[in-house]
Amino acid sequence: MNRKKTNQPALWPVLIAGGSGTRFWPLSRKDRPKQLLCLTAERPMVCEACRIIKPLAGCGNIFISTSRPLASKMKKALPEISRENFIIEPVPRDTAPAIGLALAMLSRKIEPRKPEPVLAFLPADHYIARPAAFRKVLTHAADCAASEDLLITIGIRPSFPSTNFGYIQLGKKLKGKSGLAMVKRFAEKPDAALARRYIRRGFLWNAGMFLARPSLLWRVFARYQPGMFRQLKKILEAPAGKLKATVNSVFSALPKISFDYAVMEQAREAAVLPAEFGWSDIGSYKILGELAGRGLTRNLGKGRLVLMDSRNLFVHTTKLAAVVGLNNLALVESDDAILVMELGSDLKLKQLVQQMARQGLKKYL
Amino acid sequence: MNRKKTNQPALWPVLIAGGSGTRFWPLSRKDRPKQLLCLTAERPMVCEACRIIKPLAGCGNIFISTSRPLASKMKKALPEISRENFIIEPVPRDTAPAIGLALAMLSRKIEPRKPEPVLAFLPADHYIARPAAFRKVLTHAADCAASEDLLITIGIRPSFPSTNFGYIQLGKKLKGKSGLAMVKRFAEKPDAALARRYIRRGFLWNAGMFLARPSLLWRVFARYQPGMFRQLKKILEAPAGKLKATVNSVFSALPKISFDYAVMEQAREAAVLPAEFGWSDIGSYKILGELAGRGLTRNLGKGRLVLMDSRNLFVHTTKLAAVVGLNNLALVESDDAILVMELGSDLKLKQLVQQMARQGLKKYL
Repeated sequence: MNRKKTNQPALWPVLIAGGSGTRFWPLSRKDRPKQLLCLTAERPMVCEACRIIKPLAGCGNIFISTSRPLASKMKKALPEISRENFIIEPVPRDTAPAIGLALAMLSRKIEPRKPEPVLAFLPADHYIARPAAFRKVLTHAADCAASEDLLITIGIRPSFPSTNFGYIQLGKKLKGKSGLAMVKRFAEKPDAALARRYIRRGFLWNAGMFLARPSLLWRVFARYQPGMFRQLKKILEAPAGKLKATVNSVFSALPKISFDYAVMEQAREAAVLPAEFGWSDIGSYKILGELAGRGLTRNLGKGRLVLMDSRNLFVHTTKLAAVVGLNNLALVESDDAILVMELGSDLKLKQLVQQMARQGLKKYL
Repeated sequence: MNRKKTNQPALWPVLIAGGSGTRFWPLSRKDRPKQLLCLTAERPMVCEACRIIKPLAGCGNIFISTSRPLASKMKKALPEISRENFIIEPVPRDTAPAIGLALAMLSRKIEPRKPEPVLAFLPADHYIARPAAFRKVLTHAADCAASEDLLITIGIRPSFPSTNFGYIQLGKKLKGKSGLAMVKRFAEKPDAALARRYIRRGFLWNAGMFLARPSLLWRVFARYQPGMFRQLKKILEAPAGKLKATVNSVFSALPKISFDYAVMEQAREAAVLPAEFGWSDIGSYKILGELAGRGLTRNLGKGRLVLMDSRNLFVHTTKLAAVVGLNNLALVESDDAILVMELGSDLKLKQLVQQMARQGLKKYL
């Protein structure tokens, strides 16, 4: 990996690390979302995501987009990232406002006489089996984003007809760009039959990674989200002394809307780079169990694991865990709760957490 | 219940409370066996067993047969029972030595000029739904034991073809004694088909309860276990100052053998009283779950319980327990272990515990 080659644009990765979710309850809590959990390594997922891109950008050019309640934990988890590189959302919104805020804040840092960097918006809670291959893809995507002035998303070559991801249909290929193609359309999460059809027709998984030059991002915001564009401009142009107050007032007025929906699905400038680097969104206990190996014989918490006639488990407990005569389940222990769940019943887990909120059991969430 | 009626013999119940087992691991441990657990009530099972027979005998005549490692916990659990009424086995043996030791120790307390009492050897870890009916049965059994000079066992009328109990086949009925019959034979735990045949033929469950006068017990030991008889005689006749040493030396030389096998199965004096009082041996988590009600919605530990699409559970945890998309399982948390088990796979649990012992995980047992 050599970022010093001439004509290569500077890459400024922005890790989107403000989200929350319930898919890993009871390990994940309101104040300890997935990106702060050690699910695939000894360190939190956001640290892994950061470690993997460090060779591309260096700590000085890595930015962390996160929410106010998570900010101090994030800073503690990532001591090598300067405080100034944390972009704090005053209230929870979706990815379009998160990306817009990062765009405005980072645009303030760009030096006018230098070549424009490429911003890369990346998840902070995914798993990448082959980091070197991933970095190679990002480098190529950044080159294309700069040379072609496109809004580039990474499309993962599907390994199975998943119903958990959106899909991307490829349009016209761009010659000499390693498979880079214009986006024909973004497709919502399909059912199983449709997913199989998508696979046959060569659709790719949408992994939520976007690269573009700031100038193009401003143009697409202006074209497809003019309201948001005007608000973000205020942040861009606010005097330093009034920046924080401007962010606070502007950001909370922005709509809860995803960047896919707000911009990508409409943008004529959207292109997709097909890639394969052992990516997983780590969307459920089941996927973690699969990553750790089917027929798991290891407790991913600190406890021992003893099994009798049981297999295909995800076990994360501090106490010794014993499973007898049961297959396909997650057994997860946190400080104050124990979950036993059939692997794959993620929707039911979501419903359970909602039910707990209604039952006044919020202290467990 | 009026034990003062003339001609009624004094009843001296002996609770057999020295056993150990793994069926309730991880709640039960080597030093905290089932009879010390609070499985069916707020108090340990041995306390319940004691409470139920107290109206028949009074605390002064209730005896506790237990093992040396459990003695202090037993005394603490049963403060109303005098220290002298605890019969401590120096080493673990089976029920024949336990009953033999109790026989020898209690025979030393019998006053020669008074009518002989009836000894009733009873489990300390069973559940009885209708205690008054149970006491009525015991009273009648004791009367028969005294008037007919028989070795009486209580035969439970089966509610289903269980494969977990031994069975008793009835022989000749004794007139005017409420169904009391001589024992034709004792049958080992059957398989399912045989259990159904036993039920059709009117066999009864062997609940491990025996009543007899001491003089008859001495005779049957002499006839069917002459070696054990000679050893027990030494305890009976030991001078007070040498009693403890005699017990220690004699008891450890006795064979590990059950009273059923050693005596009952051979004894011509064995009779059985058919009875029904909501008895359960509480042999597994499954039975506990059934007792607590199918489709359980209560955590029998101190924790909350939240369920989504799950039923037929036995849950005993201190932390909040959440079960998602799973039926027919036990979820049990102790200080240092969590067990998840398919209900009904008790043999596998036993194997698991044996495996843990082999793996050097004895501190969890």
